[in-house]
Amino acid sequence: MPTIMKIIDELMNYELIKVTGKGEINRGKPPQMLEFVSNNHFVVGVDVGTTFISTIIMDLSARILCRQVLPTMVEQTPDEVIDRIIESLHFVISNSDVEKSRILGIGIGMPGILDNEAGTILFSPDFAWENIGLLEPISKEFSLPIIIENVTRAMAMGEKWFGEGRGLETFMCINLGFGIGSAIVIDGELYRGVSGKSGELGHMTIGRDGPLCKCGNYGCLEALSSASAMSNSARVLIKSGRKTQILEAVNRDLDKIEAKTIFNAAKDGDPLALEVVTQAIEYIGIAIANMTNVLEPGLIILEGGMTKAGDFLSVKLQEVVDRHTMRYVGSHTRVILTRMGENVAAIGAASFLIKRLFEHGGNADELFSR
Amino acid sequence: MPTIMKIIDELMNYELIKVTGKGEINRGKPPQMLEFVSNNHFVVGVDVGTTFISTIIMDLSARILCRQVLPTMVEQTPDEVIDRIIESLHFVISNSDVEKSRILGIGIGMPGILDNEAGTILFSPDFAWENIGLLEPISKEFSLPIIIENVTRAMAMGEKWFGEGRGLETFMCINLGFGIGSAIVIDGELYRGVSGKSGELGHMTIGRDGPLCKCGNYGCLEALSSASAMSNSARVLIKSGRKTQILEAVNRDLDKIEAKTIFNAAKDGDPLALEVVTQAIEYIGIAIANMTNVLEPGLIILEGGMTKAGDFLSVKLQEVVDRHTMRYVGSHTRVILTRMGENVAAIGAASFLIKRLFEHGGNADELFSR
Repeated sequence: MPTIMKIIDELMNYELIKVTGKGEINRGKPPQMLEFVSNNHFVVGVDVGTTFISTIIMDLSARILCRQVLPTMVEQTPDEVIDRIIESLHFVISNSDVEKSRILGIGIGMPGILDNEAGTILFSPDFAWENIGLLEPISKEFSLPIIIENVTRAMAMGEKWFGEGRGLETFMCINLGFGIGSAIVIDGELYRGVSGKSGELGHMTIGRDGPLCKCGNYGCLEALSSASAMSNSARVLIKSGRKTQILEAVNRDLDKIEAKTIFNAAKDGDPLALEVVTQAIEYIGIAIANMTNVLEPGLIILEGGMTKAGDFLSVKLQEVVDRHTMRYVGSHTRVILTRMGENVAAIGAASFLIKRLFEHGGNADELFSR
Repeated sequence: MPTIMKIIDELMNYELIKVTGKGEINRGKPPQMLEFVSNNHFVVGVDVGTTFISTIIMDLSARILCRQVLPTMVEQTPDEVIDRIIESLHFVISNSDVEKSRILGIGIGMPGILDNEAGTILFSPDFAWENIGLLEPISKEFSLPIIIENVTRAMAMGEKWFGEGRGLETFMCINLGFGIGSAIVIDGELYRGVSGKSGELGHMTIGRDGPLCKCGNYGCLEALSSASAMSNSARVLIKSGRKTQILEAVNRDLDKIEAKTIFNAAKDGDPLALEVVTQAIEYIGIAIANMTNVLEPGLIILEGGMTKAGDFLSVKLQEVVDRHTMRYVGSHTRVILTRMGENVAAIGAASFLIKRLFEHGGNADELFSR
């Protein structure tokens, strides 16, 4: 009881809970009724994608106060990209009209293998970045706690706090975008591997004689089935002389072919598009079945741009997954598309600060004194 | 202090610890020195393999008192195989001269997907068993606690209690035998999946256009690289007219070709054997790299008959693993061959009872009163 009172006092002190009235009981002193207050503190999240940098500031219930989307321009130098992240952070913080002292920190999600402690991007094939410091230049601009994590892990955090992962002990997220990544929550905690580098599902070798991957290997899932692999496949087929409605959709500019263009054409029954989509889905389905056979998670949530294809994707995919999952193993594993929308990664990145807040327990002073 | 004294009294009561003397300190009452007593209680373990049923009774330090190996004769009915398991259990219990009341229970490891609660084999492709009750017929014979588990999980338990997994939070075992299976220890606990069916690494699809697997799928690791797949490959090549020293080694009886025969010929430089070994190792290496990329365990321990090939296997395998593991990810993952010898699965199966003993904590009465 004294311990609980101490915690409650502290939470009240930081305006994280409030008294909402008195409870009714038959005899004795009526208890105070408490409620979590989510809109007195705020967290900032950044989703650094290959196409867009998407930055949000939200309250502790994931209500977004301000959002900015800037083009990543990944072909520029890392410094220039990082400058845009900083610009975007300044923008959402200033435009949200939130007291600076009520911001708990910044979470940043980006694709690739990160050294979280050092705050560096060790290797991001999507960005072609190797050993790039991310934490340091951003820390110089903001006197706030900053957490840097792999974007698919950020998505898993988003699902755990605010999505389909709520209340689940174990689930997996698979990010189907320009690249392919994964993250697993086991026993309620993000699984990170022996040195924090787990999750590279995109570099699972499935087709040994497959195409060269950006990582330097051959036949990786990412080289067979990512959005960029799909665009490449479509281009190769078109250059070989095959007819397709995709050509019109991109005004004959092959560089403009995106996974979205291909999915749309496939939905219209375009044979070339269907061929590309079917191959991509085949290997994604195999990868999902492989993970199900080995890990048997109860839930696999698909994330990323490709999930915009909706039922068209999930129906075809489920058929492949069923075919490749071992009998008796797959019956308890559901595969679903995320329901969190396009902000899942930014919300998830910001959620690392919420997790940090509640983990600190009795030492919140440390968090709030800046 | 009172709690600790209560636990110590209880452990002494069950002769699990003993006083070895008095410690020396500068002042105050000298403390009692205690020691774990491993040879007052015993556990029984069975490794039900496709070729042999290997049964042991051991003390709590894995010292084996009695061991019996019987042929499995997997082509017989499940009832007949189970009768041999029971026969073997009676043999080691009677022949060990151990007081029945000092036996904590029986652990049984066997390949396939098990329902541990019900004590049934749901599906074992290696045995071609489906929905076979194992616990019930054995329970009728022995009034002892009986734990039934997948054999690779048993191996992982063996490594955790008595092998290279001691003190490790996270590691993986891969069983390379007649079939291929896996087990993962995460945060010190055996990971089991949402309904207990994780670990089917043998049914990871790697070669989509690969051979038919016993599970009904195509291109599974097990169909490409298990000991039985290697024997099949060798037979196919020999039937196609290729010359090999394997033929002499088996007196021209193709049914007698085992992985061991092929590894021995490969070590002698036999081209056909080298071809078969190289292909098997290629896919095993890819599977290990795939698991490293996704899970980044600190240690992967290889188990099973194939590990008898020793350095010849591990050197070639490491080369493939290195080639397929993503840059930055693999540097913290060691791949080793088990050092526990041929009893690892039986010791591991028995260890489930040791784990159970110490988990029971203050309720040991329940365990000891039979």
